[in-house]
Amino acid sequence: MTQAKQTPELSHLNQQGEANMVDVTEKAMTSRTATAQGFIKMNDETFALITTGKHKKGDVFAVARIAGIQAAKQCSNLIPLCHPLMLSKVQVDFTLDEENNQVKVTSLCRLTGQTGVEMEALTAVSVACLTLFDMCKAADPAMEIHGIKVLSKEGGKSGSWQANNS
Amino acid sequence: MTQAKQTPELSHLNQQGEANMVDVTEKAMTSRTATAQGFIKMNDETFALITTGKHKKGDVFAVARIAGIQAAKQCSNLIPLCHPLMLSKVQVDFTLDEENNQVKVTSLCRLTGQTGVEMEALTAVSVACLTLFDMCKAADPAMEIHGIKVLSKEGGKSGSWQANNS
Amino acid sequence: MTQAKQTPELSHLNQQGEANMVDVTEKAMTSRTATAQGFIKMNDETFALITTGKHKKGDVFAVARIAGIQAAKQCSNLIPLCHPLMLSKVQVDFTLDEENNQVKVTSLCRLTGQTGVEMEALTAVSVACLTLFDMCKAADPAMEIHGIKVLSKEGGKSGSWQANNS
Amino acid sequence: MTQAKQTPELSHLNQQGEANMVDVTEKAMTSRTATAQGFIKMNDETFALITTGKHKKGDVFAVARIAGIQAAKQCSNLIPLCHPLMLSKVQVDFTLDEENNQVKVTSLCRLTGQTGVEMEALTAVSVACLTLFDMCKAADPAMEIHGIKVLSKEGGKSGSWQANNS
Amino acid sequence: MTQAKQTPELSHLNQQGEANMVDVTEKAMTSRTATAQGFIKMNDETFALITTGKHKKGDVFAVARIAGIQAAKQCSNLIPLCHPLMLSKVQVDFTLDEENNQVKVTSLCRLTGQTGVEMEALTAVSVACLTLFDMCKAADPAMEIHGIKVLSKEGGKSGSWQANNS
Amino acid sequence: MTQAKQTPELSHLNQQGEANMVDVTEKAMTSRTATAQGFIKMNDETFALITTGKHKKGDVFAVARIAGIQAAKQCSNLIPLCHPLMLSKVQVDFTLDEENNQVKVTSLCRLTGQTGVEMEALTAVSVACLTLFDMCKAADPAMEIHGIKVLSKEGGKSGSWQANNS
Repeated sequence: MTQAKQTPELSHLNQQGEANMVDVTEKAMTSRTATAQGFIKMNDETFALITTGKHKKGDVFAVARIAGIQAAKQCSNLIPLCHPLMLSKVQVDFTLDEENNQVKVTSLCRLTGQTGVEMEALTAVSVACLTLFDMCKAADPAMEIHGIKVLSKEGGKSGSWQANNS
Repeated sequence: MTQAKQTPELSHLNQQGEANMVDVTEKAMTSRTATAQGFIKMNDETFALITTGKHKKGDVFAVARIAGIQAAKQCSNLIPLCHPLMLSKVQVDFTLDEENNQVKVTSLCRLTGQTGVEMEALTAVSVACLTLFDMCKAADPAMEIHGIKVLSKEGGKSGSWQANNS
Repeated sequence: MTQAKQTPELSHLNQQGEANMVDVTEKAMTSRTATAQGFIKMNDETFALITTGKHKKGDVFAVARIAGIQAAKQCSNLIPLCHPLMLSKVQVDFTLDEENNQVKVTSLCRLTGQTGVEMEALTAVSVACLTLFDMCKAADPAMEIHGIKVLSKEGGKSGSWQANNS
Repeated sequence: MTQAKQTPELSHLNQQGEANMVDVTEKAMTSRTATAQGFIKMNDETFALITTGKHKKGDVFAVARIAGIQAAKQCSNLIPLCHPLMLSKVQVDFTLDEENNQVKVTSLCRLTGQTGVEMEALTAVSVACLTLFDMCKAADPAMEIHGIKVLSKEGGKSGSWQANNS
Repeated sequence: MTQAKQTPELSHLNQQGEANMVDVTEKAMTSRTATAQGFIKMNDETFALITTGKHKKGDVFAVARIAGIQAAKQCSNLIPLCHPLMLSKVQVDFTLDEENNQVKVTSLCRLTGQTGVEMEALTAVSVACLTLFDMCKAADPAMEIHGIKVLSKEGGKSGSWQANNS
Repeated sequence: MTQAKQTPELSHLNQQGEANMVDVTEKAMTSRTATAQGFIKMNDETFALITTGKHKKGDVFAVARIAGIQAAKQCSNLIPLCHPLMLSKVQVDFTLDEENNQVKVTSLCRLTGQTGVEMEALTAVSVACLTLFDMCKAADPAMEIHGIKVLSKEGGKSGSWQANNS
């Protein structure tokens, strides 16, 4: 596990504390990948509804996957200081955690570009979780989305980074 | 605390398990409000950077607030089966939880309309958290977003609903 | 079958032939529904790939359905003189026409509003067909989309309208 | 006329039949062009309204052209598994087919990039046709959009492709 | 000419000086109209190019009109604290001021709703001016956009307002 | 001060006077920068409200800055013949002109690409001005936006250009 040294400064504020979009004009075009994950936890009845029985083959996960992929492409319109960029791959996957009545959502974003794609990966996970919430909220309005974090980053000047205990 | 009875069924799938946008044409126009919350937890150095000292008055929270408000208005473009609707109020607030090095994000959405606005409130919270992540990630890439849930809903046929222990 | 009398004039041009968005401010809020259809024809191998065998339960139709629903909500951003409106229902369905190796796409849009929703229904059908094209184009780049038309309109001052031979 | 060999498989589904955005990270940046066409057929009175007499110089075709160009740029937001890309040229043209009371819409899209642009060309044609429908629907609600297909593709690893009888 | 009394306070900031979207939930639905204007001034050669001779009937003004109408519909996505709303009419017109080599752009927006539409009218004018700039910039990069202001507002609790000397 | 020779022709119209998106496929990828400015003039009470006293540290300028940055990224969706492009830097700044009760807005856009970014810079300025208008309009509805122009352009085949008296 590699852990890049982190300088404790906020690149997104200038010296006056004003919002600052980082200038990446001079950064090299390199292949970059980021992965992220998140969870949505629900009651057991609702978890059963989407994972077993008649709705097992329903569109719940297909809809959430598409929503996550589309959201990754919209990242720079949602997060004000993100750069527009051209993702060459977005992947969203779901794993059932039956012990805890929760769905684990993972995402991978990739491109050849001048800036990292972890915000895109986090956005994909967040919106996929929100879509699962929307599709299940009639059965359980008390669901909780949690554990949204970056799992790994590769490429770019700062090298690879990987979360602890991911 | 009122807890509406929940029928365990998925309104967003039809009998074939296909994605189904609920038909709200015949629902009454009523005043509806929803509140939601979420948290972003960071290391202590980063938390200090955005809450004390020279960046205390920086734009970090202003940017995240605007991102959350704008995202609420984009909800139906992000969540596939959400209805387009005309929010008459979106509010996003931040509370510092200094004991746990985390920021609590709360949102309130309101309108007079035919459908609830909890997805809009959740979207506001999620994107505000993602924006805080983006603005602090140079200092701490290991942050975690958690505890995203609906706090309360008011209005509409199903009456009021409030989360436990919120 | 009811066929409303059509006045042969172009409401979307003013007297100078300039683009003109119709003023619907004074029109009554009434319940309005429109249905539309379209087809995508492919070669027999490709048709078999998405309708039988291992991909039968694949996400092809789920993705196209979501794309169609999302596009209906974007109609006023795509068609310059369409009014923004709040759809209360969008439905997209697929029927397999095995004899002709084609998929029939039908849509229904509904709202209570001041203007008809046939453009939204046509947009849903068009984008669902385009999405099917995208998902199958590696197998058959020579597919053709055809037969896109309005099937019926209900509500509004001009009453009901239904296509011949629909 | 060159006809590239087509492998009958669906690149947009993975082995589980789930939606899959193709990873183009490693593909070469090459110049790519695609052309597409479509038709909108109307009754003779309506066709005359937009092609002769006082509206001959009206904005009907200008509006449809702009709508088609704008839609091509929105392609990756409309078609879920399309990659975002930077079109360097979009062209939309109209030809009057007076014998059949129909307008032929053709489009050309071009870029230097990692993936083909036929979906962009098809989207431009589709939305231009929908806009013509919108502008003429008061005169003829029974119009039909048909014959939407790719005419040719150039560039990329798979080489050139051209439709038969285009 | 009616001039409503203006209270010198900023409704878009709360007591802490934070961005605040006004809550219009309880405001009455009334018919509201706003008009706005702006100018783009260019050198005489460029002004002649778009107003006389071979390009007189070109698409310059049609494109700018469509851009202005589309932008009005996007207002709440561009201006962070604007409410989403359903415009029932957007009009954009151009007047040639030959004496000063400038084009005057005027707009009118209208709806039945809970909030005024002057920001929509101003957005339509601004984007129409920007589009004229874009179309003429190869001939004159030194153009200037000026005089963007609200001409009049009608409807709503505060009554009518009209600019001086408009 | 360098002033590139301007050819008086409209690249955005073809020989028939139809809207024409310039084909930049063959243009070199070079680093390009553009700066622009604009002003919003208000009455003295309103100017004082946002520049002194209790709202001095309010979010007014932070909101307008974010709106300007976001709008620059949306430029190709707002201006019909603009190419989609990937800005690597957007900056929006505010200067108080206390003598004239006006705020000066300046912007800088930059990328490595095939086309200039002056429209992006102008769009950033325009939408930042509109946002300031929105936030102050309750106090002064008679504000005026003026002096929107390009200050300088660098990069690309046509070399540098700088406005007179900027």
